[in-house]
Amino acid sequence: MDRRAFSLSFVVVASAGLFLPPARAADETSAVPERVSETSSGCIECHADVSPGIVADWKRSRHARTTPRQALAVPAAGRRMSAKAVPDALADVVVGCYECHGAKSGPRGDRFEHMGSEIHVVVSPKDCAICHPQEAAEYEGTKKAEAYGILEKNPVFRGLVDATIAPKRVEEGLRLVHGKPSATTEHETCFGCHGTVVAAKGLRTVESEYGEIEVPVLENWPNQGVGRINPDGSKGACSSCHPRHAFSIEVARKPYTCSQCHLDPDVPAYNVYRESKHGNIFASQGEAWDFDAVPWKIGADFNAPTCATCHSSGTATADGKTIAARTHDFGARLWVRIFGLIYTHPQPVKGATWLLRSKDDLPLPVALDGTPAAEGLIGPDESNRRKRLMEGVCRSCHGSTWVSGHFAKLDATIRETDDMVRQATKLVAEAWARGLARGLPQKESPFDEGIEIRWTDAWLFYANSIRYASAMTGAPDYAAFKNGWYELSKALREIKEWIDVHQAIGPDPRRVNENRSQ
Amino acid sequence: MDRRAFSLSFVVVASAGLFLPPARAADETSAVPERVSETSSGCIECHADVSPGIVADWKRSRHARTTPRQALAVPAAGRRMSAKAVPDALADVVVGCYECHGAKSGPRGDRFEHMGSEIHVVVSPKDCAICHPQEAAEYEGTKKAEAYGILEKNPVFRGLVDATIAPKRVEEGLRLVHGKPSATTEHETCFGCHGTVVAAKGLRTVESEYGEIEVPVLENWPNQGVGRINPDGSKGACSSCHPRHAFSIEVARKPYTCSQCHLDPDVPAYNVYRESKHGNIFASQGEAWDFDAVPWKIGADFNAPTCATCHSSGTATADGKTIAARTHDFGARLWVRIFGLIYTHPQPVKGATWLLRSKDDLPLPVALDGTPAAEGLIGPDESNRRKRLMEGVCRSCHGSTWVSGHFAKLDATIRETDDMVRQATKLVAEAWARGLARGLPQKESPFDEGIEIRWTDAWLFYANSIRYASAMTGAPDYAAFKNGWYELSKALREIKEWIDVHQAIGPDPRRVNENRSQ
Amino acid sequence: MDRRAFSLSFVVVASAGLFLPPARAADETSAVPERVSETSSGCIECHADVSPGIVADWKRSRHARTTPRQALAVPAAGRRMSAKAVPDALADVVVGCYECHGAKSGPRGDRFEHMGSEIHVVVSPKDCAICHPQEAAEYEGTKKAEAYGILEKNPVFRGLVDATIAPKRVEEGLRLVHGKPSATTEHETCFGCHGTVVAAKGLRTVESEYGEIEVPVLENWPNQGVGRINPDGSKGACSSCHPRHAFSIEVARKPYTCSQCHLDPDVPAYNVYRESKHGNIFASQGEAWDFDAVPWKIGADFNAPTCATCHSSGTATADGKTIAARTHDFGARLWVRIFGLIYTHPQPVKGATWLLRSKDDLPLPVALDGTPAAEGLIGPDESNRRKRLMEGVCRSCHGSTWVSGHFAKLDATIRETDDMVRQATKLVAEAWARGLARGLPQKESPFDEGIEIRWTDAWLFYANSIRYASAMTGAPDYAAFKNGWYELSKALREIKEWIDVHQAIGPDPRRVNENRSQ
Repeated sequence: MDRRAFSLSFVVVASAGLFLPPARAADETSAVPERVSETSSGCIECHADVSPGIVADWKRSRHARTTPRQALAVPAAGRRMSAKAVPDALADVVVGCYECHGAKSGPRGDRFEHMGSEIHVVVSPKDCAICHPQEAAEYEGTKKAEAYGILEKNPVFRGLVDATIAPKRVEEGLRLVHGKPSATTEHETCFGCHGTVVAAKGLRTVESEYGEIEVPVLENWPNQGVGRINPDGSKGACSSCHPRHAFSIEVARKPYTCSQCHLDPDVPAYNVYRESKHGNIFASQGEAWDFDAVPWKIGADFNAPTCATCHSSGTATADGKTIAARTHDFGARLWVRIFGLIYTHPQPVKGATWLLRSKDDLPLPVALDGTPAAEGLIGPDESNRRKRLMEGVCRSCHGSTWVSGHFAKLDATIRETDDMVRQATKLVAEAWARGLARGLPQKESPFDEGIEIRWTDAWLFYANSIRYASAMTGAPDYAAFKNGWYELSKALREIKEWIDVHQAIGPDPRRVNENRSQ
Repeated sequence: MDRRAFSLSFVVVASAGLFLPPARAADETSAVPERVSETSSGCIECHADVSPGIVADWKRSRHARTTPRQALAVPAAGRRMSAKAVPDALADVVVGCYECHGAKSGPRGDRFEHMGSEIHVVVSPKDCAICHPQEAAEYEGTKKAEAYGILEKNPVFRGLVDATIAPKRVEEGLRLVHGKPSATTEHETCFGCHGTVVAAKGLRTVESEYGEIEVPVLENWPNQGVGRINPDGSKGACSSCHPRHAFSIEVARKPYTCSQCHLDPDVPAYNVYRESKHGNIFASQGEAWDFDAVPWKIGADFNAPTCATCHSSGTATADGKTIAARTHDFGARLWVRIFGLIYTHPQPVKGATWLLRSKDDLPLPVALDGTPAAEGLIGPDESNRRKRLMEGVCRSCHGSTWVSGHFAKLDATIRETDDMVRQATKLVAEAWARGLARGLPQKESPFDEGIEIRWTDAWLFYANSIRYASAMTGAPDYAAFKNGWYELSKALREIKEWIDVHQAIGPDPRRVNENRSQ
Repeated sequence: MDRRAFSLSFVVVASAGLFLPPARAADETSAVPERVSETSSGCIECHADVSPGIVADWKRSRHARTTPRQALAVPAAGRRMSAKAVPDALADVVVGCYECHGAKSGPRGDRFEHMGSEIHVVVSPKDCAICHPQEAAEYEGTKKAEAYGILEKNPVFRGLVDATIAPKRVEEGLRLVHGKPSATTEHETCFGCHGTVVAAKGLRTVESEYGEIEVPVLENWPNQGVGRINPDGSKGACSSCHPRHAFSIEVARKPYTCSQCHLDPDVPAYNVYRESKHGNIFASQGEAWDFDAVPWKIGADFNAPTCATCHSSGTATADGKTIAARTHDFGARLWVRIFGLIYTHPQPVKGATWLLRSKDDLPLPVALDGTPAAEGLIGPDESNRRKRLMEGVCRSCHGSTWVSGHFAKLDATIRETDDMVRQATKLVAEAWARGLARGLPQKESPFDEGIEIRWTDAWLFYANSIRYASAMTGAPDYAAFKNGWYELSKALREIKEWIDVHQAIGPDPRRVNENRSQ
């Protein structure tokens, strides 16, 4: 570009309307917004001083600039509210502190009196649903919403949690025993993403700049897990992806949000994305994209997908033709589940996966030999419908030869990785059969001995990684060396050599009969 | 900065001319560019609807705004076309769909009739060479261009590929055998970066929004490997680094492009760069740099190198004095090869490295004891010439004491890491000699048993990583702990202990005679 | 945002004053700044040609635009100079080449005659202290300033360095011996971050564009370690975090700077930050923040913390009330040390930690059983003072329930991880006691055998990682799987199985009596 023309072209572009430089600056003002409710104004008066960060964050948000009535006046295609109407008292004030923290969405255990108003700390999907009921309804019952139960109510997964994060102790005869995980560690690890139960346990008095005040005692708080159980009984935390207090669609559409949980080694979606051509284009050019537009126009607003583009966002052509409708059921476009289980399998119909039953009578969508559960998984028609939808997103930029080639590759890779895991499972089953290790046949943990941990590596990390790299067509280094085929082959070999060595040194009863829970 | 002065200074700077805020916005327009050829206009008419992403991408590109005649009118120093002239029919239209996908660069198997025009899907370096012949010529015959053959035609590397990505199977007696890798997995792993053969296999009929149309059947498509074998016989894919359909110099100059393949654990160039001072400055300040300028003026356009700066870009001082001439032979400035082989060695003269022969009669640039091949590698004069060129780039920012200190350190580290690998090789050779593992002396794979995989870790991952960290003078954490000395020392120790254990449990014939291909 | 309003709102925002688009552009000019001293003008005359990168870098810096007298005229809250006055000769010229490289801060070994001026290459904290004495004084004696001695003067850590980076050699009987690390490798690994001794060794003659010139011979140069020993005897390198020649507060406040050394696996601060909610918000929105403001106003200038916010920066509310005073003692706000040692412990009072003595008479802050040293560590009152200060930073955005919940979690996690390490230590001590490995009881290295390296993994990498994830409340994937509980449990199990296997194959004297230094 001719630099001398820059200041001019900058203005021209601003009117022409493709891609904008970072525009958040325009959302801000240091003054308190107009049309803030009286109660919220009262909140801001103190909190601008005691918690300036969140007040400033909110001031830059769309919530601080828009009343529900204004939001409802936006033509349907670009509307961000799914409620058809809101209570009169809310319609003409912007969405301030009290509108959410004082929302009367139902009974809850964490409401308390604070400076003359009755409020609650934990804003739940029920609160958000006052203006965004469709999003809350879509989310309800999904795997994300049920993420707490998926771990807690499934004895197999609960066993993996225990083997992983329970404190271990060396006992006499070098026996390695493990106890029960602490609530704090559960919260900081598995349940940090999955969510835990936030329970209100009365009030306590704290010293503040305004004298002594009473605040609620909340167990497992802070908490932003996607399946958080809220004090009002609802499940989920909208702030997982729309962090406080900006509630930004932009943040949710950037891959950094998904990457908080969907990260190597167990769910390497972000790692694979970052290494892919799409990730390269996002990193190289994304700063000029418009992440705020509704609908999100492919090509006009951005020119390579982020996670949200394929899995959630409402996308359209430049002239407004819908490519994919927005959904807050993040599995709704997926037909196959490629991580988290020993084998891939058709997506479950419902998020409450602990209700599934495999033919070997485990609460799993797939048996140890790879057979999917007879019930509760989507069928071929629904699979095809979802695949067609996703192909439509791809075809916004890629020809049909490209797209069909891509999905054929993914199908083949799913079969191959499942078969590699089947071989690893065969080896570990042999070790159990020979008594070299103790697992399912002995009704003991299949996750805590050396050979079992390497087997877990194989399916929980490596087979997954290869599938993710395939699904996003472009992390060959990841699939080959990083956490892929090289490591999967190495794990298989080391599992095999573990059997050789332990067979040779013999099944010393003191050695094998040990790693029991207290 | 005084914020009140911002809007003013912004305009001032735009004329003054150092660093610009993201300027891509100025490249765009929602209208179809003027001077698009009639055929390309026809393409756009439908494809703006069926593949809006690539049409918008192209509209923002320099190709959409520039005719070859305009490009040729730019003074030599800033010119982006290397052709001296182009055919009359192309000179006065912008570079649109048909100009590339309908280019008549020679015979090819993937041409087909589409909506009244004869076109091809796969745009090859031969097509690009119509306007960019020098770049295509520089690329031809390089290691990147020959990357497919480097794996496929070299039995040693092909053996590593097979051991890594072939499906494995547990046979009777717990024998672990491996078969042949599938084409899909080859394509998603090693050959994803190296490139595979894209073969046209006739036509098939697909349903489109415009009725039934015929499209070509292409094997191994999508494909963006650097050594892709195209249906016209040419090698390479310019889109590896200039992704469709923006063909952007900016994207190619950002490290995210190189990072798609040059990533840990085997080629940790990006990991080391990211952790280095240069990478820190790029990440912290790069958003204000001008990645589009030709030539690329050190200091004026940017103030820390990216991968391209040192290895490829045409760089100059602010007043236009050349620092390094642009090259698309990405090894042209390198004298020593620090990755991918068991030991470092002088760069090969040609990219077709499978033609080299080590003194132990392997198709390798270096023997198992570290001796470089007698022929086919560059000599000391050429090495010194290249080193001088690279030092010149460094001296744009660093004094001579700094620069000479840096390269002396690299030389020492190369010697030390080669020696560490020599010790690891001595151990694995001892295991072969004792019959504890089976490898080269037994004419079997040296890459598939536990001890061999740890040996591969040592040279393919750890020794490399230390050298990369040294070459970019500044990833001490990477060189120490991440994938460096700590891991290299651990691997050596574990290799040694593997021998101890397997010596003690004895060379059970059932155990050692197993990991054979089918 | 209504796009048509963009160009207008852009100007409005620039005056309104929250968040700015990247504004570095405004700092620049291609002309030589006014008020450059005569000597520095002479430097620039040649160096704009021979090292254009650093000259352009400096021209964009605040140093090139500001005289000390101007800097002193800024009201105290926003002042960037801590000197009350500077020598008259410096007061009215901008801070150019000669003002630093010709500073007369005291005797030094690296001063030399260059083009008529006496200058030195290595600018040290003593030079910077002419204008920034408070920052230099704060830094002096800290763990960072003493980082060289922390490794070099402590035989335990020096032993870990040796075991890790010394070249190894396979001797007769497969004995694996290690020698002494080379100075180059020390410099590229551990001492790359910690700093080494930069020693001036006379002069040498080099060929330049201006004929033969003499330049100093500097050992261990380039060098930017935080505890660098300078030729004038001072310790530290301000350029570690304020890289040459921009000396930018912005770069130091971005997490990329800290990430150069505070990276996985041993100090995974950056990895955890990147994966946290704070890191997500920085990555998603940080490009619009003002990283240059003094003081740094929480909410107004930025809306999620970076490393600097919590550990170093002077932060304030929008109306200027101090939240935390700026410090260049980066441990000053910390009460517990969570990495680098076998167990956590209260922060040392002084940076010279090699002077501490544990009850088992090692130069460590904590004994092998976890007992902290009786002297030299901060007490409960100081711990509480620091904790209160840090909580105050958190409370800028979070309520008291959130903050107290967070720190209670951290306390619990510190106890649990220390206990896991205690179990691992018990196992390795048992291997020493049984003679299966040789370590402290045998007065031999506790860091070089297979079991010992896995024990080191446990405390140097995994226990640390869990604590970092806890301290930043939000890298559950990291704490669970990446380098956290999963790996820590795996290490414990593998240590246990190592003992089983080596017990079974017997303490072969040829095997155990080997890994000795030469």
